[in-house]
Amino acid sequence: MVQSRMRRKGTPNPLFEVQLHLAVRGSRESARTLYRELKDAIVEGRLLAGAQLPPPRQARAYFGVSRNTAAGVYERLMNDGYVLARQGSGTYVAERFTAPSTRKELPKKTAPDRRLNAFWLDPNVTAAIGFWREQPQSTASDRHSRPIDFRPALVDPGLFPFDVFRRVSARQLRGLERKPASFKSPQGNQGHFYLREAITKHIAVTRAVVSQPEDVLVTSGAQQAFDLLARTLVIRDETVVAIEDPGYPPLRIAFAAAGAKIVPIGVDDEGLIVEQLPRNVGVICICPSHQFPLGMPMSARRRKSLLEYARNCGALIIEDDYDGEFRYDQSPLAALRASENADVVFYVGTFSKCMLSALRLGFIVAPKWALATLIAAKNCLDWHCSTPIQSAVCGFIAGGHLTRHVRRMREVYKERRQLLLNFLHGELGDWLEPIPSHYGMHIAAAGRSSVDFDHVAEALLRHDVKMHSFSRYFLGPQTRTGLIFGYGAADLSGLKRGLVSLKQVLRSA
Amino acid sequence: MVQSRMRRKGTPNPLFEVQLHLAVRGSRESARTLYRELKDAIVEGRLLAGAQLPPPRQARAYFGVSRNTAAGVYERLMNDGYVLARQGSGTYVAERFTAPSTRKELPKKTAPDRRLNAFWLDPNVTAAIGFWREQPQSTASDRHSRPIDFRPALVDPGLFPFDVFRRVSARQLRGLERKPASFKSPQGNQGHFYLREAITKHIAVTRAVVSQPEDVLVTSGAQQAFDLLARTLVIRDETVVAIEDPGYPPLRIAFAAAGAKIVPIGVDDEGLIVEQLPRNVGVICICPSHQFPLGMPMSARRRKSLLEYARNCGALIIEDDYDGEFRYDQSPLAALRASENADVVFYVGTFSKCMLSALRLGFIVAPKWALATLIAAKNCLDWHCSTPIQSAVCGFIAGGHLTRHVRRMREVYKERRQLLLNFLHGELGDWLEPIPSHYGMHIAAAGRSSVDFDHVAEALLRHDVKMHSFSRYFLGPQTRTGLIFGYGAADLSGLKRGLVSLKQVLRSA
Repeated sequence: MVQSRMRRKGTPNPLFEVQLHLAVRGSRESARTLYRELKDAIVEGRLLAGAQLPPPRQARAYFGVSRNTAAGVYERLMNDGYVLARQGSGTYVAERFTAPSTRKELPKKTAPDRRLNAFWLDPNVTAAIGFWREQPQSTASDRHSRPIDFRPALVDPGLFPFDVFRRVSARQLRGLERKPASFKSPQGNQGHFYLREAITKHIAVTRAVVSQPEDVLVTSGAQQAFDLLARTLVIRDETVVAIEDPGYPPLRIAFAAAGAKIVPIGVDDEGLIVEQLPRNVGVICICPSHQFPLGMPMSARRRKSLLEYARNCGALIIEDDYDGEFRYDQSPLAALRASENADVVFYVGTFSKCMLSALRLGFIVAPKWALATLIAAKNCLDWHCSTPIQSAVCGFIAGGHLTRHVRRMREVYKERRQLLLNFLHGELGDWLEPIPSHYGMHIAAAGRSSVDFDHVAEALLRHDVKMHSFSRYFLGPQTRTGLIFGYGAADLSGLKRGLVSLKQVLRSA
Repeated sequence: MVQSRMRRKGTPNPLFEVQLHLAVRGSRESARTLYRELKDAIVEGRLLAGAQLPPPRQARAYFGVSRNTAAGVYERLMNDGYVLARQGSGTYVAERFTAPSTRKELPKKTAPDRRLNAFWLDPNVTAAIGFWREQPQSTASDRHSRPIDFRPALVDPGLFPFDVFRRVSARQLRGLERKPASFKSPQGNQGHFYLREAITKHIAVTRAVVSQPEDVLVTSGAQQAFDLLARTLVIRDETVVAIEDPGYPPLRIAFAAAGAKIVPIGVDDEGLIVEQLPRNVGVICICPSHQFPLGMPMSARRRKSLLEYARNCGALIIEDDYDGEFRYDQSPLAALRASENADVVFYVGTFSKCMLSALRLGFIVAPKWALATLIAAKNCLDWHCSTPIQSAVCGFIAGGHLTRHVRRMREVYKERRQLLLNFLHGELGDWLEPIPSHYGMHIAAAGRSSVDFDHVAEALLRHDVKMHSFSRYFLGPQTRTGLIFGYGAADLSGLKRGLVSLKQVLRSA
């Protein structure tokens, strides 16, 4: 086999090369083989239009055939229209035969699907997984402006200090160069040690969670944390997992995939209604600081009874603290994990909100008895998180940039939040009532009247406004109606315009 | 990990077998571990009174320890009253230590462990997950030099062009700033579109695999690809998954975790022995270009019959092409996925070998009918891979840097490989015979004599040399003995020193 290198014409970069897989050396049929291989490479798009073939005098080096053999093959390819000769310049792949890949898959759509695990084909699963999927395209005629996006949990990358992050990244990459070959991330598959240390400091300050680097496992975002916890804490077809309803659909899919028996539990103004938990519950998933999506914090009374309940029936608690860095009021409530006797709590944090979701970085603070198992499962899932990203985020936190960014964003969000509350209490007060909350990047507002908020959300799309109604967050029957006002993505003027559009829609509803 | 099969004495049915879960292979404490495991099995009733232990001469195949080690352990068990020796007949479990119950649940170490999914506590699983774990610390007095590491699949970051990668990373981060808020990686959860495009070009050139960006799913390394495929292609307790034996232990754990019925299939000089595949096989996992760890390519004849077999019985194939970029000989064999009618093949590639494992980036080229499901499962696992890393690798490939790096490393590896082959054919020729291979970053050499290569590997640690013997790669009985010579981590002088140490050890073995 010969590795043929061909330069693509017009490409200034001499490194663009095509390796052909030619087994022609020493073959008596070398001409026929070379013809077929070149033709296939052109038809299949591996050799693109304009690519230059090696000159016949180099045919020996490229293809292992004689100059004359190559010249004869080129002539045949030219006659058949696959290549063109340019006077004094060489032979090039012709335009008209360059097709994108032509190889087709078998059209047996139904038959092979039987080979897929049917779980993923369940419409409930695909719907929940597609939860964040974009809503249908706007039909608004004015396409100049970007849509105003009120969906919760979105972050505007325009406000992220990329310049700082770039500098920190580059510096951290320099550190990586000096490490010896290893199968581990520099500081173990549990996650970069200094990142874990930085995380413990960060959550001690922002969430009063006391932990040590040994208690932390770095994950690819909160979603991987849920998947990992589901795969380690759930015994298939046996473990009962309680989730908040309404709640975060992608979390429940991770647990459903692990074979959990999922039980939706209602929430009221004090958060999860502990009294509704079944006796045989094994795992309880909650967002005690900022219920998702309704926003109310779990009351101190409920927290206490939740911890007692869990302890009495041997259940574990997963605390999803997705936006606890952004606190606005004098709320006395820290993370549940910061409570007394919270050693049954698995605390899940994420950098998706306080930094960027695109980083895919989160973490679990786990009870010590579970850590070895979580690390083993993480190894089976993907060994460890990408080291350059871990290093960069570690440097970003250690350098004080996260604290600075969170402080700055808290001010930005505070202003947006105030604007929203003014609108909700004022101009929109006939239709909506905001649910009190202290944290985060969104406010939920319950409907006062019998307005169909699903229709409102649809109508808003025609105004180029994206907004979620409550309905998509429910697993059981929908007990409350209303709208979610995320303020991570849109700026003040955008929010204003969006709220004005909402008022219009509500008026005509 | 060893599944030891023992026939119960006096039971006419040869199918009555006891599986021991012994994780003793390659351990310096093999005698102590074997003693403890056998004792536990007897005390817990997993080995019943009258059961015959395998003769010490078969200890290698059953336990992965030497004949002498096993004989010593049996003697100790006899002294302690657990077993009896019968003249000229063998060793049997004694009556008085046999408990009435049969197999017990895993020992309950502490109360909370009951809440963990027991799969992850199985010693077989933890052993296979700990596969890449560092061997015990060297006891060599000379701690000035870094250990010489012959383990396969390691890459020396000292040869990676970090300066280029840094530049490319920074440039790509600049591009990210301008994206609007989104829940997707800029180009979708399937992976960065331009990275998928760059991957299709890369594998077209290096592996003759024709694909389109739509066919590619970016994963967090090959390990996530295996986990993802296991979770989508396996139906729990139903799907039969064939793996190569010897093979890559972390792959089989991903499939075991998904509930696959795993069947080890032997390999010979032509690769996987297709004739051994069971009729009801659902998924076949192979490394056709460079068998892991033995190195032989799968012959054209076998490839053809494998594809036919898969097609006839409706099975799917997972092609793990972990180091196909590094090709040294005139091998006419490209990737299996590049064959005619290879649309049942899921091709798994990785940037761990041709770039760096710490990036945690790999990909699947999947048949079209399976892609939507794979993407849905990927979303459930962790949404998508970290965007800055995807962008950086994309820029690295598109800028021609990967091609340049691979070309450079191929020269580096070629020289190391030649040195190794010279030693193996020369000074080490009395003990070892290299297994022919054309690809990659390691060579396997089969033992010519009855040397105990586990002991050799242990003895090498005292010379500050890390080397794997074959034993740890087997799931079933070990059919071949020998050593693996990875040349990704050590340079020429290191390799030389290591090989000289090996010769010393072999001489005194």
